[in-house]
Amino acid sequence: MQVITFTTDFGNKDPYVGVMKGIILDIYPYAKLVDINNEIEPQNIWQASWSIQSSYKYFPKGTIHICVVDPGVGTTRAPILIETNNSIFIGPNNGVFTWIVEKEEIKKVIELTEKKYWLPNTSQTFHGRDIFAPTAAHLAKGVPLNDLGIPVIPSDLVRLPESSLIKKEKSCTGIIKHIDRFGNLITNIPTNEIPGSIKGKIKNKEFKGLISNYQDGEQFKLFAIKGSHGFVELSVYMGNANKHTNASVGDKVEIKF
Amino acid sequence: MQVITFTTDFGNKDPYVGVMKGIILDIYPYAKLVDINNEIEPQNIWQASWSIQSSYKYFPKGTIHICVVDPGVGTTRAPILIETNNSIFIGPNNGVFTWIVEKEEIKKVIELTEKKYWLPNTSQTFHGRDIFAPTAAHLAKGVPLNDLGIPVIPSDLVRLPESSLIKKEKSCTGIIKHIDRFGNLITNIPTNEIPGSIKGKIKNKEFKGLISNYQDGEQFKLFAIKGSHGFVELSVYMGNANKHTNASVGDKVEIKF
Amino acid sequence: MQVITFTTDFGNKDPYVGVMKGIILDIYPYAKLVDINNEIEPQNIWQASWSIQSSYKYFPKGTIHICVVDPGVGTTRAPILIETNNSIFIGPNNGVFTWIVEKEEIKKVIELTEKKYWLPNTSQTFHGRDIFAPTAAHLAKGVPLNDLGIPVIPSDLVRLPESSLIKKEKSCTGIIKHIDRFGNLITNIPTNEIPGSIKGKIKNKEFKGLISNYQDGEQFKLFAIKGSHGFVELSVYMGNANKHTNASVGDKVEIKF
Repeated sequence: MQVITFTTDFGNKDPYVGVMKGIILDIYPYAKLVDINNEIEPQNIWQASWSIQSSYKYFPKGTIHICVVDPGVGTTRAPILIETNNSIFIGPNNGVFTWIVEKEEIKKVIELTEKKYWLPNTSQTFHGRDIFAPTAAHLAKGVPLNDLGIPVIPSDLVRLPESSLIKKEKSCTGIIKHIDRFGNLITNIPTNEIPGSIKGKIKNKEFKGLISNYQDGEQFKLFAIKGSHGFVELSVYMGNANKHTNASVGDKVEIKF
Repeated sequence: MQVITFTTDFGNKDPYVGVMKGIILDIYPYAKLVDINNEIEPQNIWQASWSIQSSYKYFPKGTIHICVVDPGVGTTRAPILIETNNSIFIGPNNGVFTWIVEKEEIKKVIELTEKKYWLPNTSQTFHGRDIFAPTAAHLAKGVPLNDLGIPVIPSDLVRLPESSLIKKEKSCTGIIKHIDRFGNLITNIPTNEIPGSIKGKIKNKEFKGLISNYQDGEQFKLFAIKGSHGFVELSVYMGNANKHTNASVGDKVEIKF
Repeated sequence: MQVITFTTDFGNKDPYVGVMKGIILDIYPYAKLVDINNEIEPQNIWQASWSIQSSYKYFPKGTIHICVVDPGVGTTRAPILIETNNSIFIGPNNGVFTWIVEKEEIKKVIELTEKKYWLPNTSQTFHGRDIFAPTAAHLAKGVPLNDLGIPVIPSDLVRLPESSLIKKEKSCTGIIKHIDRFGNLITNIPTNEIPGSIKGKIKNKEFKGLISNYQDGEQFKLFAIKGSHGFVELSVYMGNANKHTNASVGDKVEIKF
């Protein structure tokens, strides 16, 4: 029972993800296929990186995570595989696994070079279909990891620039790292490093917190809450903090204790 | 082979549903996971209630239906489990199961209180991940229903207000209960209680019916048809009744026999 | 381990696809269910036809492909099953399988008439639920293909009009067959029939090509690339060719060698 997940920018209006699943089931029919998120904005490596880092640790040991947000497909950027203690990650070496690499112990990194585990006649534009899906399936089926390519050193892994987080004694400045469907603004400020009572500002809108559930925020327009990912989130009760603040990913958030 | 379904407002642009699936497969790898609908409008309990009541009866006996549309997450609203003759429903006690409770014989209602079947460090904002998913997985794995919490009486279940339906000898007045992707307006007027030939009005637009298939409606702008859910639906052939009438969920529909 | 796929215009905001899956699992719990694409534009048979023809060949031998884009549901258009060497296709006889029929050897065509394999009380508006899903499940479970209905001759299959493709010694004129999520314009001009160096025009915008990967197109505004489906595609590097050209499906594309 091998779980294989998908994090892509292929969307649900094209058959690209379905095709990858067909290839996997053709090679290894027992795979358990789970979509994490196929609606990553086209070519938004940052968003894909956030999506996979907030999900992978909930999956069973041994899960293979395929991530295909790949604007450099067909160029010299390498197709890679990363092995950590509990998981396997497969995708392009373009920074999409940045936060995995920062948080987990890396056991092995392989550059995928062994073409017998790819589809024949590999295209230059769809490596999800031609390289990543069949490689994941062969691995699930039992092909040893070392047979899939050549080892490279972890420092060869491309990383996204570190997101800005400045902590002082009485204040903290971070950024919006993700905006979810509900309009919640998820920051990069860990809740376990700030006190329970704070004031803050984002784009000239003020907020207070931390409150413990959405309904307690009813008295505020905008409030800070202990988010389920372990970071400070900004929300509006029964409303949409994104619309209220007009914030974007990357915008600065200031907090005072 | 235990089926577990998902009806949520988490959308397909965030990894929330994927995370719930990872947790379930970690606890019980043999679960068969099926999305009913993860694009419920944020916090629209009414729409979720409609979605699940029109789906559950098509699933195998013993299916566990998780429903997470949960604006009160983290407050005193209880997490519950409802057992009927054929199915199990898990979600917040906020009315989302209203039409299940009206239609099915309730065998048992449990308030989920047993934290050993939850994720550790339960958040106040994501009970789908921390309570509902792991509880469903433990149940699928064989944990007895009674071990998951404490029994409560069915009358403690929150219900949405009854939707207005007035039947007279020569007429019937109901409301639009759901608008689907094709713009079909689905009413709460059961087709088996009205004659075959009717006239009606919605928002000053007139319609006739009942016709038996979409193509027979070609001669009308707007027509009433025997819907696949057992209710009168208003449609436009090769068009969109929602755009034609500018109707909303809750709008009044009048029918004369 | 029987794979069943879904290509529909039911979208992800209604429970229609979930209902079909529930029915299948109720009849045959071991089915492996895969979405190819449920976001086909409402009633767009052309788009559905493109989606399934670019996907089916990647699935395991014996896969059952259900396709429900069915504006004529409930009329005299027949529900059909097509058997090819490697696959089974189930859906309405409305042209949705045009490109399958052109490319594959047809072993058998069955008009689905055997109501004991349908849901009881078949509706006139939702044959995906009432006919196609249960028929696929019974077939997966082992019901012989011939028991599902009566054989018809392949020439009874409805076909979409052939798409225009004019090849001359020094030029080629085709059309845009599909526009994907990234805004790539996928033509009906096969890459193996044109030379490597071309110039072209679409809607008064000029392009050059063929280049071999997206990044090599950095120097051009609009360029032609060897698409992963075997056809010429028009793209903009890190941009959107659809927005750049304002093209639509069906628009003419001219190429000179």
